Amino acid sequence: MAATRSSEQELAALVAIPSVSGDPAHRADMRRAARWIADRLAFANGRVVESDGHPVVLGELHASRDAPTILVYGHYDVQPAGDASAWETPPFEPTVRDGRLYGRGATDDKGPVVVALETARAFAGAPPLNVRFLIEGEEEIGSPSLPTFLEAHRDELAADLVVSADGAMWRAGEPSIAVAAKGLVALDLVVAGPSTDLHSGRHGGAVQNPNHALAAIVASLHRADGSVAVDGFYDDVMPVELPAIAFDEHAYRAETGVSELHGEPGYTTLERLWTRPTLEVNELRGGGAYTVIPREARAHVTCRLVPEQSPARVVEAIERHVVAPPGVSVRIEPRPGAVPAYAIDPGHAAVRAAQQALRSVYPEHEPLLVRIGGTLPAAVLFERILGVKTLLFSFSTADENLHAPNEFFRLARLDEGIAAWTELWRLLSGGRAA
Amino acid sequence: MAATRSSEQELAALVAIPSVSGDPAHRADMRRAARWIADRLAFANGRVVESDGHPVVLGELHASRDAPTILVYGHYDVQPAGDASAWETPPFEPTVRDGRLYGRGATDDKGPVVVALETARAFAGAPPLNVRFLIEGEEEIGSPSLPTFLEAHRDELAADLVVSADGAMWRAGEPSIAVAAKGLVALDLVVAGPSTDLHSGRHGGAVQNPNHALAAIVASLHRADGSVAVDGFYDDVMPVELPAIAFDEHAYRAETGVSELHGEPGYTTLERLWTRPTLEVNELRGGGAYTVIPREARAHVTCRLVPEQSPARVVEAIERHVVAPPGVSVRIEPRPGAVPAYAIDPGHAAVRAAQQALRSVYPEHEPLLVRIGGTLPAAVLFERILGVKTLLFSFSTADENLHAPNEFFRLARLDEGIAAWTELWRLLSGGRAA
Repeated sequence: MAATRSSEQELAALVAIPSVSGDPAHRADMRRAARWIADRLAFANGRVVESDGHPVVLGELHASRDAPTILVYGHYDVQPAGDASAWETPPFEPTVRDGRLYGRGATDDKGPVVVALETARAFAGAPPLNVRFLIEGEEEIGSPSLPTFLEAHRDELAADLVVSADGAMWRAGEPSIAVAAKGLVALDLVVAGPSTDLHSGRHGGAVQNPNHALAAIVASLHRADGSVAVDGFYDDVMPVELPAIAFDEHAYRAETGVSELHGEPGYTTLERLWTRPTLEVNELRGGGAYTVIPREARAHVTCRLVPEQSPARVVEAIERHVVAPPGVSVRIEPRPGAVPAYAIDPGHAAVRAAQQALRSVYPEHEPLLVRIGGTLPAAVLFERILGVKTLLFSFSTADENLHAPNEFFRLARLDEGIAAWTELWRLLSGGRAA
Repeated sequence: MAATRSSEQELAALVAIPSVSGDPAHRADMRRAARWIADRLAFANGRVVESDGHPVVLGELHASRDAPTILVYGHYDVQPAGDASAWETPPFEPTVRDGRLYGRGATDDKGPVVVALETARAFAGAPPLNVRFLIEGEEEIGSPSLPTFLEAHRDELAADLVVSADGAMWRAGEPSIAVAAKGLVALDLVVAGPSTDLHSGRHGGAVQNPNHALAAIVASLHRADGSVAVDGFYDDVMPVELPAIAFDEHAYRAETGVSELHGEPGYTTLERLWTRPTLEVNELRGGGAYTVIPREARAHVTCRLVPEQSPARVVEAIERHVVAPPGVSVRIEPRPGAVPAYAIDPGHAAVRAAQQALRSVYPEHEPLLVRIGGTLPAAVLFERILGVKTLLFSFSTADENLHAPNEFFRLARLDEGIAAWTELWRLLSGGRAA
């Protein structure tokens, strides 16, 4: 592996580009980051390709017509840095402390992307399988241009498997492969009452207050025990047998800072997080801290779904459940972008290859098959449009302050990741373990 | 009455001064409005007196040591104009249309203040009773400096009765005198859960969501029938027998724009508005329209109280009622500025004199004794600090867009008001009706 620069230097150079997809002020930085990645893939015909939004980087390495083809997925865009004062060092000045590289995007998703690029560079002369690259720039804003892009480039992107550098490992000390991620459906509950805001002194007690009506509706969505009270919500949910995985509830309470855990009875915390659908009210909003009966109050609701659930059926169940109290009307506004759950069979050959690759790098830990409470829209799109499964093989870890101040990436994961990806490619090519 | 300018011209000049007490940008305008009023009371030793906040205008007209003394109360400050585009003509360019003068503060409280000033000017040479003036500049921000000001000027302000130019008549066609106003106590309900905002995908279903807990608590404050479910809330409430007053529920539904009225069972809408205490949740606030379980959710609550209720006891009842669901804590933060209800005996001599004065101006309508769902902190302060009752004798009408765009004052009310105030002063002085 004849590197002109170390993988750490590469990562620092990429993190230094503030490629914030959600901020129009960073349009030029987005293009600069895409160009940077395309340059790193010069040996693989790396190129910046326009999309309806931020550009996409494509590339390909050819092995042979008989070899399988993988599509490597990652993203070069990052979340906004947020409150600058909360960062110990500036978000776009990558800084190494205690074996970690700090900076916005270090772990989501630039560290894992550098792992993939460095693996490709190591193999550039003689790849054991055909590799295509798709590094997008809109993951942090919901990949709005990706479906159209995949449709338009379907042939160029055809592959037997997607290997994703996105998606994080569960815990630092325990190598893991995620085999399922929940779906997502979002909606707003809107309660409309008087035609204008009313003075709560002049009119209080005589008209239904939309805040009261909204609270009653929201309170009706769950039972006191934490289960979802919407009739039909659990109808399509299949039982899932989790492998035996140690979970420290005390540590989890400490991590979240709650006095006690709370959720659907009859399930462990890990089962609630990984295998059970949820309904969370993310926002309550109505009126203000003055003497008003507001004309409207609203709640933003997201449900996380398991594989058998249909987003549309879940919305229908909520619509049937919600009844307007007297004197107000209620409407349900579905939000765009519903995503079904994603799952790959734990016995899939790619999962088995990934387990073997992880064992070769972490021989002292048997890799865990885990699940993700969050959502992976890209994996769902690859399945729907390209007809291929996605293997999540990221070397990010869930504790590395994704989307938060002081995001970091453990530098040891660069070499570990490159070694594991190298082994994975060999295994997927049909070659024997090195 | 040798007026150099008509009362309409006087009102227009006062409305043209943007005396917004809540906006520091209008400090100079506040002083200009106070000076304007003091100038109008030049014959009564009118003067601008400093307070801890915006200045107060004082003045006095002496009749004789044996005559009774009244203290005339009003305010020269106004609400902010709000959304300028919602005004048909600019808020501080007084404009007459259809016998109404439009402009911010026209009815709250500058029209009624001009009535009082013009009455005083008519009597300037020979008042039938001793008159003191207190026109404050902080009514629209809760009169924060008034208690201290009253304490400091107790002797100067001593009187047998306060006659207030503030407080509106109930309806345009029906002369009325308000004999009671509800009290007010405000508090925030704060639900605290995780130590930071959590990702609702990663943590949903395993921890109590403060939005859910807040909704359950808020929903528990009322029964489905609209009554307050807080144990002890109605304990001190005495039954009130309202005089027979026609109330058009259909018109009220149209005015408020609700599909049906809703409130405590067993009471008419007028009884709910005037005689029953209320608990209204003015604000719900928690999280945002993204995938978050917020660390905190809060509600702003105001209760309107009837005379027998103690603000402190009502807060205690709510504190006893509120129970934290598992996994979150709840605290109740009382807001400053609790005000008990105010009432004057409908048989009080001042009320009888006011009725007689109204009959002299509106001989075809028997004056109604009404109640106010809102709160009159000044009347409560005058009773507590100066030991005197307040007669509400305003010629504002409740439909004149107080605190809203296109506020107006019916110009006919100027002459009617001056005639009624003149008659009232004669009657209060012990003189016979003119």
